[in-house]
Amino acid sequence: MRDRIEKKLKELELELPRPQKPSVAKILPYSFSGSLLFISGQLPQWEGDVRFVGKLGVDLDLEQGKEAARLSALNVLAQAKAALGGDLDRISRIVKVSGFVNCSPDFAQVAEVVNGASELFLHVLGGQGAHARVAVGAASMPFGVAVEIEAIMEVLT
Amino acid sequence: MRDRIEKKLKELELELPRPQKPSVAKILPYSFSGSLLFISGQLPQWEGDVRFVGKLGVDLDLEQGKEAARLSALNVLAQAKAALGGDLDRISRIVKVSGFVNCSPDFAQVAEVVNGASELFLHVLGGQGAHARVAVGAASMPFGVAVEIEAIMEVLT
Amino acid sequence: MRDRIEKKLKELELELPRPQKPSVAKILPYSFSGSLLFISGQLPQWEGDVRFVGKLGVDLDLEQGKEAARLSALNVLAQAKAALGGDLDRISRIVKVSGFVNCSPDFAQVAEVVNGASELFLHVLGGQGAHARVAVGAASMPFGVAVEIEAIMEVLT
Repeated sequence: MRDRIEKKLKELELELPRPQKPSVAKILPYSFSGSLLFISGQLPQWEGDVRFVGKLGVDLDLEQGKEAARLSALNVLAQAKAALGGDLDRISRIVKVSGFVNCSPDFAQVAEVVNGASELFLHVLGGQGAHARVAVGAASMPFGVAVEIEAIMEVLT
Repeated sequence: MRDRIEKKLKELELELPRPQKPSVAKILPYSFSGSLLFISGQLPQWEGDVRFVGKLGVDLDLEQGKEAARLSALNVLAQAKAALGGDLDRISRIVKVSGFVNCSPDFAQVAEVVNGASELFLHVLGGQGAHARVAVGAASMPFGVAVEIEAIMEVLT
Repeated sequence: MRDRIEKKLKELELELPRPQKPSVAKILPYSFSGSLLFISGQLPQWEGDVRFVGKLGVDLDLEQGKEAARLSALNVLAQAKAALGGDLDRISRIVKVSGFVNCSPDFAQVAEVVNGASELFLHVLGGQGAHARVAVGAASMPFGVAVEIEAIMEVLT
């Protein structure tokens, strides 16, 4: 059933940003190997406008951190859509998500922040959005953003 | 030879914890893609009781860090056992281990800490437990634990 | 066309270091699963002599950080060459690069540092060196080095 995911996005009143080219170097926003799709670490940005700059435990609270993770996850989906010729229904499953949280040394709610991304994937993709995960606190991040989310997906080729 | 690994665990007097459900969100403790098994980042916990909370270089010494890594690695094996229907002999090899160490900015023995996990995999699985690895110092960690270990394994499907 | 990459290295006046055994534990410098080659996190060292010890934003400037990333990337290629029986032309593509930068909490040029590695891969391998990527700031690193680079490659088996 084509457009199943697109309909779900509409139902959830979610809009995907336009996928951004990596702002530095000639790196790729995604790559394939067989049926695996590797999405580069995505920042919380809306079409090039970087948001949620700052550290959890210093500048941003838990809710803002979850929002940042959610926005990064929307960018992951935007890149996946571009990688899959516009057809998000070709995602068989999200295999693994890595979530990095820019935070102070005493901030222990790292997993809760990354939940902002995990829950988005579950809402949009249902059971196919369930994934293995690692969540880690980072000393810093590109552009000083709060969260970076990368993903490995299995896709129909 | 079925139960080879179970016998090795007994010989080493090692007990696996019961595999824990991720404490947050509906994320998965593991996922498959073809013959690859991705184990979510595991914390040093014993059946839900989180241990080794603190930072290397501040609260915990090297030996405690290695113990934490070892306990996280036992949880990796516990998840693998659950994923493989109880049969650890289906592990063909551990392909990659990522070890994240919660530490102070001046703590340089990051690799030594993660060795606690690597050595456990080697002891239990022998040559099949040898793996590629990355070891990184983290600014913080879920629940403020000392170590998080994730793994990719190749398994018999 | 065998030796294409070796010729490119000569043209660029680049010499690969001899691949180093991991300095700790019996971990592997690389592992295979099918056509995927996983290279362990490589440090900026020249044949066992660790260089670029220190933190970005404290001890080292951006150019030094990029040099460190470049040297780590040369070690990635050295390990790949050893893994592939000396034949770098068996690299079909670099699928994913993870770059970890040892830095102060306020250092935001994390991506720029990792570009030192990404650009090296592109120069040496051309289009096959283009990759998906994640770049993260780390609280610390093995031996206190500035950068660690790991990679997943797709190779001809």
